[in-house]
Amino acid sequence: MPLLQRAALTALLALAVPLIAFAQDQEPIALRGMGSFHIGGRLVEISGKPVKEVTFTAGGVPAKVDPNGTYQVEQMYVQYFLPAKERGTVPLLMWHGGGLTGVTYETTPDGREGWLTMFLRKGWAVYNSDAVERGRSGWAQYPDIFKGEPVFLTTANPFERFRIGAGPGSYDPDPAKRKLLPGNQFPNEGYENFVKQNVPRWTTTDDAILAAYLAEIDKVCPCVILFHSQAGTFGFKAAQARPDKIKALVAVEPAGVGDIAKADVLKAIPTLMIYGDYIEQDSRWPTIRATGVKFAEAIKAAGGTAEVVDLPKVGIKGNSHMLMMDKNNAEVAGLIQTWLEGKGLTRQP
Amino acid sequence: MPLLQRAALTALLALAVPLIAFAQDQEPIALRGMGSFHIGGRLVEISGKPVKEVTFTAGGVPAKVDPNGTYQVEQMYVQYFLPAKERGTVPLLMWHGGGLTGVTYETTPDGREGWLTMFLRKGWAVYNSDAVERGRSGWAQYPDIFKGEPVFLTTANPFERFRIGAGPGSYDPDPAKRKLLPGNQFPNEGYENFVKQNVPRWTTTDDAILAAYLAEIDKVCPCVILFHSQAGTFGFKAAQARPDKIKALVAVEPAGVGDIAKADVLKAIPTLMIYGDYIEQDSRWPTIRATGVKFAEAIKAAGGTAEVVDLPKVGIKGNSHMLMMDKNNAEVAGLIQTWLEGKGLTRQP
Repeated sequence: MPLLQRAALTALLALAVPLIAFAQDQEPIALRGMGSFHIGGRLVEISGKPVKEVTFTAGGVPAKVDPNGTYQVEQMYVQYFLPAKERGTVPLLMWHGGGLTGVTYETTPDGREGWLTMFLRKGWAVYNSDAVERGRSGWAQYPDIFKGEPVFLTTANPFERFRIGAGPGSYDPDPAKRKLLPGNQFPNEGYENFVKQNVPRWTTTDDAILAAYLAEIDKVCPCVILFHSQAGTFGFKAAQARPDKIKALVAVEPAGVGDIAKADVLKAIPTLMIYGDYIEQDSRWPTIRATGVKFAEAIKAAGGTAEVVDLPKVGIKGNSHMLMMDKNNAEVAGLIQTWLEGKGLTRQP
Repeated sequence: MPLLQRAALTALLALAVPLIAFAQDQEPIALRGMGSFHIGGRLVEISGKPVKEVTFTAGGVPAKVDPNGTYQVEQMYVQYFLPAKERGTVPLLMWHGGGLTGVTYETTPDGREGWLTMFLRKGWAVYNSDAVERGRSGWAQYPDIFKGEPVFLTTANPFERFRIGAGPGSYDPDPAKRKLLPGNQFPNEGYENFVKQNVPRWTTTDDAILAAYLAEIDKVCPCVILFHSQAGTFGFKAAQARPDKIKALVAVEPAGVGDIAKADVLKAIPTLMIYGDYIEQDSRWPTIRATGVKFAEAIKAAGGTAEVVDLPKVGIKGNSHMLMMDKNNAEVAGLIQTWLEGKGLTRQP
């Protein structure tokens, strides 16, 4: 049986249990706690630079700032929400994709409930982070500390690259004039707000990002990790580095994978890979998906249980790369919740 | 009567009501909602640059990135928590100081409860933001869009500048060897974590920051605004631009103020200014504080009710510039809560 069909069949079998309703719930959220911390990072020495005088606040008093000295860099911000009635047997870590932050999992760009609160309402202790050099994690001076320059995206770029619009030229500032892929579930009317969520990112910081995620695992886990896009690399590599700490992996359109030569390390970790719609007609996603499927096959060949779900093949159509924001985000969350329950990772209230 | 003594007397009179206990509360937090949004910002055109090829994920598929086009810049991230039993008559907006993010008001660097959840537990709908170009608000390319370079701080800088340590040379990587100001309430053992909260910041973005805060006010208010340090400038200027929307101002060690020629615009807005300890022995803070007190006096001269509280003069000693993180942060929060209740801005449960 060809690889793709076999993966789809596995997915269908995995989903034989009924999908859980995951509609927006207007019941209050009861928390036994919430908060945040920074973790990981390292110290770097800078020397040989002139002292500056900086007026931090207009009309304020200038302060001498000596740029020489020790800098704290490559730490990571983690925000957590602990439900009063915990039903996940372990916490759920959410890792966002490239050029984004933990905001990915919060309120959707068109103001609907995001996955963070959806899973929190289901009783998961959720730890949502900003990868190193993104968002509240801060970033380090370059080229002194970070190598290379950061990448900035135009307003059109994600629309055309994240399988929202029908390729190059599909974006228009006027939402009514945009060429969406047919039946696309991304909230077009909120696209500007999604662009506002984008942050600069380096492409040279993978080692630092992974190190901070490992520090998070060492503090918070055992756990389940749900990760998206660029974090595919980090999710699988982190699980390979800490296999005993990871009870399940949920890879949402992973753009990268782990070390395939060590796929056997993941054999005891139930793994779900989810892909949205329009992949076959995209210029890059067939290759990206194939890398993921090959990795899943390697886990299975080692005796593991990696399951690949192509959403259109299980009747969930129209998903862009930003599944957690799409109009049917509750349906996709329901699929993940059902899978986690099937793996025995939840308990009765 | 000299200005300082008069201000202290005003403060003492304002605090004649008993201080409210504000200890860490282990009761669950019940929320009717939580979420986030980005607001404000503008579009900027960049042209004449070469197309780049970027491999976003190691082992991934290279994508062409055309840096020419339209960029979304200067938006602001806002996260909100809405209590099930709301007791504030209006929402409470929290604006952090320079080089920091909304993390300022979250869990303290040594892991205690911060002001965000303290005020949430008291029934305030809290809106906590990251100023433009800080944290989850993202930042724009420079020098193309932002003018000037960002400022980075060494690990020692805030220790010596925020009235934690006894001036230059007081910081040491070993917490036991640091020269703290006598009786200082900053959690020395968590100082490394505080350094991790610091983010790069520009000193040329005040107009953009203010514009985004005004957009937040237009969306969320009427409200109370609690602001710290650099945000002194923004809090007072925003209130001068939207006086009908602001029901009270809580200025926590404001490093800047509004337009003193228009102080009368604030006369209907109850204003509280709070200063911590060690100000008189600092090289910069006597001047910074004097600017604040002069502004408060101008509001009062116009018939307003600005109250200046020097914490040591009301028996609250040892506070650094980071009052909301100091070991007695609950006591300072209690003082603010008492003041807000005194202004009729809370309702009975």
